[in-house]
Amino acid sequence: HPANAAPATGNPSPMPHPAPTELIEPDWLWTGHAGQPALRDQSLVHQDGRIVAVLPAELARVRYPQAERVSLPRHLLLPGLINAHTHAAMCLLRGIGSDLPLEAWLQGAVWPLEQRWMSAGFVQAGSELAAAEMIRSGITCFADMYFFPEVTADVARASGLRAVLGLILIDFPSAWAQDADAYLARGLELRDSIRHHPRLHAMFAPHAPYTVSDEPLRQCAALAEELELPLQIHLHETAQEVRDSELRHGRRPLERISELGLLGSRLMAVHATQLLDGEIDALAAAGASVVHCPESNMKLASGICPAPALAAAGVNLAIGTDGAASNNDLDLLGELRSAGLLAKVSTGDASALPAPQLLEMATLGGARALGIDAVTGSLEAGKAADLLALDLSGPACQPVHDPLTQAVYSAGRDSVAELWVAGRRLLRARELLTLDESAVIQRASDFAARMTE
Amino acid sequence: HPANAAPATGNPSPMPHPAPTELIEPDWLWTGHAGQPALRDQSLVHQDGRIVAVLPAELARVRYPQAERVSLPRHLLLPGLINAHTHAAMCLLRGIGSDLPLEAWLQGAVWPLEQRWMSAGFVQAGSELAAAEMIRSGITCFADMYFFPEVTADVARASGLRAVLGLILIDFPSAWAQDADAYLARGLELRDSIRHHPRLHAMFAPHAPYTVSDEPLRQCAALAEELELPLQIHLHETAQEVRDSELRHGRRPLERISELGLLGSRLMAVHATQLLDGEIDALAAAGASVVHCPESNMKLASGICPAPALAAAGVNLAIGTDGAASNNDLDLLGELRSAGLLAKVSTGDASALPAPQLLEMATLGGARALGIDAVTGSLEAGKAADLLALDLSGPACQPVHDPLTQAVYSAGRDSVAELWVAGRRLLRARELLTLDESAVIQRASDFAARMTE
Repeated sequence: HPANAAPATGNPSPMPHPAPTELIEPDWLWTGHAGQPALRDQSLVHQDGRIVAVLPAELARVRYPQAERVSLPRHLLLPGLINAHTHAAMCLLRGIGSDLPLEAWLQGAVWPLEQRWMSAGFVQAGSELAAAEMIRSGITCFADMYFFPEVTADVARASGLRAVLGLILIDFPSAWAQDADAYLARGLELRDSIRHHPRLHAMFAPHAPYTVSDEPLRQCAALAEELELPLQIHLHETAQEVRDSELRHGRRPLERISELGLLGSRLMAVHATQLLDGEIDALAAAGASVVHCPESNMKLASGICPAPALAAAGVNLAIGTDGAASNNDLDLLGELRSAGLLAKVSTGDASALPAPQLLEMATLGGARALGIDAVTGSLEAGKAADLLALDLSGPACQPVHDPLTQAVYSAGRDSVAELWVAGRRLLRARELLTLDESAVIQRASDFAARMTE
Repeated sequence: HPANAAPATGNPSPMPHPAPTELIEPDWLWTGHAGQPALRDQSLVHQDGRIVAVLPAELARVRYPQAERVSLPRHLLLPGLINAHTHAAMCLLRGIGSDLPLEAWLQGAVWPLEQRWMSAGFVQAGSELAAAEMIRSGITCFADMYFFPEVTADVARASGLRAVLGLILIDFPSAWAQDADAYLARGLELRDSIRHHPRLHAMFAPHAPYTVSDEPLRQCAALAEELELPLQIHLHETAQEVRDSELRHGRRPLERISELGLLGSRLMAVHATQLLDGEIDALAAAGASVVHCPESNMKLASGICPAPALAAAGVNLAIGTDGAASNNDLDLLGELRSAGLLAKVSTGDASALPAPQLLEMATLGGARALGIDAVTGSLEAGKAADLLALDLSGPACQPVHDPLTQAVYSAGRDSVAELWVAGRRLLRARELLTLDESAVIQRASDFAARMTE
């Protein structure tokens, strides 16, 4: 309900709405570990934003007689989904230049509009729209790479989402910063302002090897180490990018950023559609993560991230929607389904990336990549109560022979019924509780209309 | 509302609920032709089950002042989607044997259950569930290949859907028929019983070259010609099928069925993931259609139908969900999105199968393949009022820079708001009007529970 909405700006308020102890009773519960099946008749107890226990339903009722019960028949409770790579505000450009290849799409359609319209207002309108869409799609946490990240932080504060804010870095001037030093300075300022907030996290986010020079990349790597922050970069997104790097730098992008100090356990390589076997091994050896964005890669014909081979090599996998301008939505369940379908058809192996492994990519795998797996990503006592309940009672999800397969291949964002972040309910019976949805949509659509008039 | 539901069996009743003249006023309207853009401020008038006119909104209000107005702001009105290949009743097996390859899935999981449980009751429970799901997914017409097609026909009668019922033919005995002669006899009996029904159509549906012998295939081809019915067959679904045919028959399946008389303008080749250039040319020269089922092919790792090359050669393309047992849903919008993503990544061309072409596959292309394009498939005066309105007002579909791209890549089954078949509304504000949804789900889930006890 809009009345519940926190103000869009203001002090970080860790638990603006302290919830009573809740006892959630779904038909099935899945913890976030691919090796574990969906469990029947298990309940989850949470209090003060944290998970207190996951235990048999009967026992839970005995142990927590005072708790407020949330009965969820025919629902699957799982960790909230983690969208490990997006550009939330780009929702305002949803569908612009569709059916164009990456270069033409970026240079002919997206960049001119961004250059003309980039502002705090753009990011506010776009991120709010993205927040509404993401909550409705089962996402409890998103990792964002975009200009004006402090505005995106405000939207995360107000909407109740967990966010990992990218301290963006790019050689080109923008309305947000004029040069690499300014990007880094503003980024660090944001990082300082959120460092004690329980739902806001930071990561370095140099845009790509082809848009950031050696020196700022080196600085980024050093700062990430010093501040113990993860670092996310678009890497090996297209064959063209790799060829260009070979021409310009005499080496492939991964080799170059490795020499600049970026290859390590803090690294998230986003996209990674072009990988030699040795590069897969190098990522594995370094303990790096790959953020798979299958639909963006497919739609822009960029290539196919070898997710099954990466998993086999031991590389941690996360999954992201990318921005809605390319893709054209922020539906992580849909993204999981595409990741599964693509893995199977591209390897010729129908058993590639089975459903539990896909779901782990969207939960614990994402948390690991973003360095927040001590806080979220699985249903374990002590972690934040970042929860999602999928309603499998509809005709598209019945009968339920296998809840995890159903979650990936039958459920959709229309199955997302209930969602909590740090114990606070953001979605109840498919209604947004923290955002005034029609106002958010109106502001976004008004802004978009001005842009394309 | 269940109170509106027609009885599940009984006489064909062409227009059980004659609707008044309706004037539908969406923000955008798309006719079903890939060459035409989405039109603004156009209205559609329908009466007695048929489209009377598509004309400018202002003019429509002047010409049809008595018509009942249906105002659909922020909606896109388009022809109802045509699911050109499914096995509706297999919804009861949704998710069974997921992540297994085709052979293991069929022989280890699906066929044993089918053999044990096949009955009119199975098909009734499964097809009703499928009908509920399909209406909610924007489908107004489905082409079905399964046992007990007369039961599926009853479900189509009761639900109000348009159906093209496959007269199934397979060498193996089943609970429905014992041998090829019996299959054909029962099929022809069904065809006679529905031939005057305005929403029920028939097609021959020999299962596959590897499950039907020469003689019944030859008979099928002759009967299709004589009765002027289309014919649908699983063809070149996997490389294994093609290799087996080469070993057993000394030729590829398409060559064999061509010699048996099946290759012609009535033929729908379903799947077609393995095609030589000469085979694409042969399909084009014959005026045959291909039914693309991308998600089934991806999930079972069968291969990739070369849809862009087929389209370039002039082959008519339709699209199908296949059965929900493999896939695991009957969501044709999702299937379109997968078809687009797969076409782009597999050709390396981001402009392959642009959104309007995808939408034509799901509407007019399907109608052409099924031989019912004189009746349905596009918004033209004289055709049946088979209509779908997508609600693009939600956060996942805003802003609307391009309604057709939005329909494919942002909208989902949750955007399906209103649906009419032959002028009768089957879905109003996302509520089913002809099926008692909770009873349908309960019957299906009870049946499934018995099967797997």
